[in-house]
Amino acid sequence: MKKLEKEQGITEKKDKNFVEWYNQVVLKAELADYGPVRGFMIIRPNAYRIWETIQKYFNNAIEALGVSNAYFPLLIPESFFKKEAEHAEGFEPELAWIEQEGKDVDEKVAIRPTSETIIYDSYAKWIRSWRDLPLRLNQWCNVLRWEVKQTKLFLRTREFLWQEGHCVYETKEECDKEVKIFLGEYQKLCHELLAIPTIAGKKTDAEKFAGALYTLTIESLMPDGKALQMGTSHNLGQDFAKGFGISFIDKGEKKALPWQSSWGFSTRLIGALIMVHGDDKGLVLPPKVAHNKIAIVPIVFKEDKENVLKKAKEIAKTLKKFNPIFDDRDNYSPGWKFNEWELKGIPLRLEIGPKDLKAKQVVLVRRDTGEKEFVKFSALEKTIPALLDIIQSDLFANANKLLDSNTVKVNTWAWFEKGVKGGKMVLAPFCCTESCEEKIKDETTATSRCISFDQKKVDGKCIKCGSKAESLVYFAKAY
Amino acid sequence: MKKLEKEQGITEKKDKNFVEWYNQVVLKAELADYGPVRGFMIIRPNAYRIWETIQKYFNNAIEALGVSNAYFPLLIPESFFKKEAEHAEGFEPELAWIEQEGKDVDEKVAIRPTSETIIYDSYAKWIRSWRDLPLRLNQWCNVLRWEVKQTKLFLRTREFLWQEGHCVYETKEECDKEVKIFLGEYQKLCHELLAIPTIAGKKTDAEKFAGALYTLTIESLMPDGKALQMGTSHNLGQDFAKGFGISFIDKGEKKALPWQSSWGFSTRLIGALIMVHGDDKGLVLPPKVAHNKIAIVPIVFKEDKENVLKKAKEIAKTLKKFNPIFDDRDNYSPGWKFNEWELKGIPLRLEIGPKDLKAKQVVLVRRDTGEKEFVKFSALEKTIPALLDIIQSDLFANANKLLDSNTVKVNTWAWFEKGVKGGKMVLAPFCCTESCEEKIKDETTATSRCISFDQKKVDGKCIKCGSKAESLVYFAKAY
Repeated sequence: MKKLEKEQGITEKKDKNFVEWYNQVVLKAELADYGPVRGFMIIRPNAYRIWETIQKYFNNAIEALGVSNAYFPLLIPESFFKKEAEHAEGFEPELAWIEQEGKDVDEKVAIRPTSETIIYDSYAKWIRSWRDLPLRLNQWCNVLRWEVKQTKLFLRTREFLWQEGHCVYETKEECDKEVKIFLGEYQKLCHELLAIPTIAGKKTDAEKFAGALYTLTIESLMPDGKALQMGTSHNLGQDFAKGFGISFIDKGEKKALPWQSSWGFSTRLIGALIMVHGDDKGLVLPPKVAHNKIAIVPIVFKEDKENVLKKAKEIAKTLKKFNPIFDDRDNYSPGWKFNEWELKGIPLRLEIGPKDLKAKQVVLVRRDTGEKEFVKFSALEKTIPALLDIIQSDLFANANKLLDSNTVKVNTWAWFEKGVKGGKMVLAPFCCTESCEEKIKDETTATSRCISFDQKKVDGKCIKCGSKAESLVYFAKAY
Repeated sequence: MKKLEKEQGITEKKDKNFVEWYNQVVLKAELADYGPVRGFMIIRPNAYRIWETIQKYFNNAIEALGVSNAYFPLLIPESFFKKEAEHAEGFEPELAWIEQEGKDVDEKVAIRPTSETIIYDSYAKWIRSWRDLPLRLNQWCNVLRWEVKQTKLFLRTREFLWQEGHCVYETKEECDKEVKIFLGEYQKLCHELLAIPTIAGKKTDAEKFAGALYTLTIESLMPDGKALQMGTSHNLGQDFAKGFGISFIDKGEKKALPWQSSWGFSTRLIGALIMVHGDDKGLVLPPKVAHNKIAIVPIVFKEDKENVLKKAKEIAKTLKKFNPIFDDRDNYSPGWKFNEWELKGIPLRLEIGPKDLKAKQVVLVRRDTGEKEFVKFSALEKTIPALLDIIQSDLFANANKLLDSNTVKVNTWAWFEKGVKGGKMVLAPFCCTESCEEKIKDETTATSRCISFDQKKVDGKCIKCGSKAESLVYFAKAY
């Protein structure tokens, strides 16, 4: 048994070898596995459940905003990519093409890296008048980008799952407004559901989406000091409409060009969740994300075995709405079971043994802090939801503290370098030119994360070139 | 307005030109559209909603049976297809390969036509002991089969959405049992949710899944006299386990080969739904499938306009759980609105005008029968769910009648030919040899649909060759 318990757990410390720790958590908590083709991943049930929870939460949010789900084809004709020049250039190197031999296709077709082009081809057919606007569709699907960098499960894989929203509006004002609203929904999802704090802002031109007028983003900082882009919302302007021939008859009976937006987040959010909340024992799931919120482990000895099991089962029944795992497996020790449910991040453990039975109580153990609490049977149904709420908000508060203490405002290049090297999210005055951004990237490997929404007055000089700063911009090394 | 109303509706009769009628319903009710690449389809929100409803229903059902959802990669290496000979042969002609140029892959890779091979490669890694069994995973995904036959929206497209379940068991008995259980879930889904009756049975060897020991199926008959396979559940035997090296240490500490099953249904169910229930006005949705169960159309004149709208809005609020569509658009006539919601299949229409307001009532109109009923405001909340239940069961009863009256038992070749030509589901004694099945197909274009579960005693002679019949088998022309 001892040997098993050792193999079972995480053998690396999060603050010693973060990369290895992360891989162990992903593999040992059975969240994902490597696919047979390089760069591809298998999303196992423990992680897919998280994805389903995210989907449900977000579907509710966007339905209330008038968005409908749809599904567009996987394969996109080559000519489509050429209708918006910047977009084509951005994605071309990562496309996977289908072998044309034996296929009745008029031109080359590629697997979608994102679906702007194929969706807007339909929009051109469907949109006729201002009555058809705003049009707001979303799709949940797989996309493929043949990246050459090394795979990191959930964070960088050639295929990933995501949602992509695609809206069309009569005016720029409406488009601007909703681009921000959908970004706000991403932030809510991260803060309220995943308990991950984020910084919101606008991408610099160098970092914006290929083909967009501008890109809004939410960024978070991982415990290894690298920023992770959590979701982006783009105002695409009118270039796609021009490229794909989307027009509408406006209220004044004139033909007009609409404004478009797209917005997306992906399964990389699961990677962020693992990194931000996980610890040396494995995954830590915020209660709102956890499908199984409690693991019930009866502690049985020969004496009183039946009564303990009976009561434990009874409790499991009364706690049904928390989807408890009832672990009465004979062939594993309580210690092994504790390790397993800790590794898998179940928010609460409920233990009950013969002594507890006599005292009419159970032991509740918090996954996040390890704190134990004796709770009377009669108080269980009230205590558990309250405790889950506390865990949820504690996780967010802790993650917030970490982000705050690792975000620094700097005014000199020396402090800038020190900051990004030290794994900080660095806020600095910046001229916002692409050449300056290029230099910063070359010298520090840090990239601009976003132009802060919170500008106040910017009166400093650019951190790099010393010319007049245009904005306060966040920089960090990034995934 | 007149012209618009004409363009808006279905211009073909279901019983005159079924093919054209079907295409018009699909396109005009905005269920689907043709994709830019031949053979591909776009699933529009009105149909995607149906798919989501099916997903939710089925996820609940299989979760209760211990099935978890997961996601496996889109691309499958060539060598995988060769590990189970029959399977490879079955799918090879329909595979789409990725261009290898510039890709760091060791061998050719294809887009999944189904995922047995890539999933079982992982199962070989994950399964060690009997403790890991039964293993029951399901995935919702897109698959691609490069068919050469002409596209029929929902019914035959090169890419479609589906679920595929993949289970592993210790024994054949367990596998047999659950293969039947999952088929039963398909049948429940069709009968209870979609209101489509089906016939359950076993496929003949000629019609079974490529690589399976045997295939169970549910089949339905469409109004044009063609059968549609609604879902299949396969006992895969042990050949995939052999091919992919899946083994487990059994309870006697010995290495053993497991038994496997797979089962799937696809977005073609939406096609069946349209065909079975639709009428000359368009789509008819069974209430349980309809997201919006009611369309509320206030009938406004200048007088009393505000009061009517106010009351209509109030009603919409109290009926919120039925997701009513509240159609107060100014620029469309009531007639136009009636047509639109009929076309889109909304189960109930609620009308309210100035006279109704005075009489404290509304008019409820059933989409399926056109029947009108005056209902007092105070009785609405009770009447509507009852009426929706009636519609649901009436639709099923009618579809059942159609299936019954079009199913015939025959004992002579003359009647057999007459039956399948006349669009019947024909039950006949059959020798079950592939050669006889081939002949029947050549002469009549009908195929065997399934060996009936309900065999009683088979004492007749094979309908085709006259030798001793082995089973009673359903034959029909099929999609």
